[in-house]
Amino acid sequence: MSQYWSPLVKSLTPYVPGEQPKITNLIKLNTNENPYGPSPKVLEAIRSVADDNLRLYPDPNADQLKQTIADYHKVNKSEVFVGNGSDEVIAIAFQALLKQAHPILFPDITYSFYPVWSDMYEVTYNTVPVTDSFEIDIQSFNQKNGGIIFPNPNAPTGRLLALENIKALLEMNTESVVVVDEAYIDFGGTSAIELVKDYPNLLVIQTLSKSRSLAGMRVGFAIGHADLIEGMERVKNSFNSYPLDKPAQAAATASFLDEAYFQGCCTKVIASRDQLTQELTQLNFEVLPSAANFVFAKHSTEDAEALAQQLRDRSIIVRYFNKPKIDQYLRISIGTQEECDSLVTALKEILK
Amino acid sequence: MSQYWSPLVKSLTPYVPGEQPKITNLIKLNTNENPYGPSPKVLEAIRSVADDNLRLYPDPNADQLKQTIADYHKVNKSEVFVGNGSDEVIAIAFQALLKQAHPILFPDITYSFYPVWSDMYEVTYNTVPVTDSFEIDIQSFNQKNGGIIFPNPNAPTGRLLALENIKALLEMNTESVVVVDEAYIDFGGTSAIELVKDYPNLLVIQTLSKSRSLAGMRVGFAIGHADLIEGMERVKNSFNSYPLDKPAQAAATASFLDEAYFQGCCTKVIASRDQLTQELTQLNFEVLPSAANFVFAKHSTEDAEALAQQLRDRSIIVRYFNKPKIDQYLRISIGTQEECDSLVTALKEILK
Repeated sequence: MSQYWSPLVKSLTPYVPGEQPKITNLIKLNTNENPYGPSPKVLEAIRSVADDNLRLYPDPNADQLKQTIADYHKVNKSEVFVGNGSDEVIAIAFQALLKQAHPILFPDITYSFYPVWSDMYEVTYNTVPVTDSFEIDIQSFNQKNGGIIFPNPNAPTGRLLALENIKALLEMNTESVVVVDEAYIDFGGTSAIELVKDYPNLLVIQTLSKSRSLAGMRVGFAIGHADLIEGMERVKNSFNSYPLDKPAQAAATASFLDEAYFQGCCTKVIASRDQLTQELTQLNFEVLPSAANFVFAKHSTEDAEALAQQLRDRSIIVRYFNKPKIDQYLRISIGTQEECDSLVTALKEILK
Repeated sequence: MSQYWSPLVKSLTPYVPGEQPKITNLIKLNTNENPYGPSPKVLEAIRSVADDNLRLYPDPNADQLKQTIADYHKVNKSEVFVGNGSDEVIAIAFQALLKQAHPILFPDITYSFYPVWSDMYEVTYNTVPVTDSFEIDIQSFNQKNGGIIFPNPNAPTGRLLALENIKALLEMNTESVVVVDEAYIDFGGTSAIELVKDYPNLLVIQTLSKSRSLAGMRVGFAIGHADLIEGMERVKNSFNSYPLDKPAQAAATASFLDEAYFQGCCTKVIASRDQLTQELTQLNFEVLPSAANFVFAKHSTEDAEALAQQLRDRSIIVRYFNKPKIDQYLRISIGTQEECDSLVTALKEILK
């Protein structure tokens, strides 16, 4: 605490991201990264911009990247917003669209950054309980609100809300913006992007950090009605004109142009997830149905925090949340098949 | 305007950055980029991180980069903050340190993003007139305030405030934070970083976009008392945990390790600036004394906006500000010696 801090900063409780340990030889299953590297074409695109032109500012509007995303998702460029990771995109959505007179709504079990952004931007909120099986019940969102935000699939549960339910939510909630945070959608869901043309209050946010193996490059984007995007651009241009550096713009563009590589990685992760789910079930874990690149699992008898520690003792890191309703669950990112096998072997040792 | 916009976004007038034209064969002297590319070691550092590890998040705290900057500037790592360009760093300083009960102060002629950030973060401000010769008069800042911010050298004038004046300002102003925005300091000034150890309310901000030729990579940093930095980290971690991607962290680190290249570029730019100043003076421009990588110049008879247009007709872009007190000036970035020569040749044609 310092006399020079603003009253705002004194009140903040910052988000704590998953650990990024600097020691090697860990099996790192704690931050939902893709176990497979980016497309070789993406790496080549990064190398290709490492030249004297880095002395120049990047395109502040990232036009080429926006057009590439627009073409890929069959929308107009004016319906695309890009940012420095989807965290920045969501933060800007809070300021541009969710800071309203009424409280916003999000699930009680969800991405733990939402309440942090709410505090940061002085956005009031109410949480809406998920069901006992950790599903989002759209009827419970049928209340006056300044906006709605949730991940789909939800985090850290992995549970998917079907597109018809999102459509029903949009039919029910026309007076405020609905933000669907699709960080994990490519691992088993159908994107709500196809609904954007019909619902002017829908904003869909995606990231290249998970399914496109580019956590290290920090690129996220939003797709919504051009008016919503314009509001976000106004905030972005009142904050930081050039959030995406040249390698990030080049890498992201190249990623959307290598569909085969992208699909191949997703297919492998999904296969490993399904196999890991079976194996964990055989080890007496209850595993929630996941449409993401992680599983959320609870053992029938063993304490989750103790299990996380015993895995760590064997150089395997998973995510444990010491929070109500989920403090007996582990969130386990899907690694390579070998990493998943090592995890299962370690759990068999621990549980024997 | 959309019914879904927040009241905040409806009120914003975003910053308009200098043009980044997409056509080639322009002589681009409008956004103060370095005419020389980054160090070859920087380019190699970027290429070296273009590998499978980009699937992993970058270090959210950028520890290696912070330590490198700390070593370079002889401060502690806890006194260093890094961000996605100095614009992001300044935006965070507004939220963490400058959002106070009293209005902040900045010069009336200065970086035009300051009033934009003030509006964005609902920070009240008063502007303090510069002198008739465009100098900052520290006595005019001797008034109750919530903070003070100014560039040194100032933009778009290039005028330098001597270190002893900054020291006097700090002696006079102990109750609020003084932010010195040193985007251009390496082209002819002495950094206030050496004062940080004595003044707990001093925050110095620098960028790698200008003197280190890395506008395309988006890296800026702040140095100040550890308590100030902690306040900024709290804001950053309530907004975006991973603002610097892996290539940006690698490039910035490498830049600080190639001192000879850095000094060589600065020396060349300074020599070109001094020569251009002489040549413009011979063409009947009044050129303000500049400690930056640009000059601010007014012709004795010709209208500035018309001159800017005539230069543009010859594929040379300079910056013109249609604003009170400076609407007869051109801000001309220092290009390569060849680009400066082309500018002088074009001006001779126009003025003959």
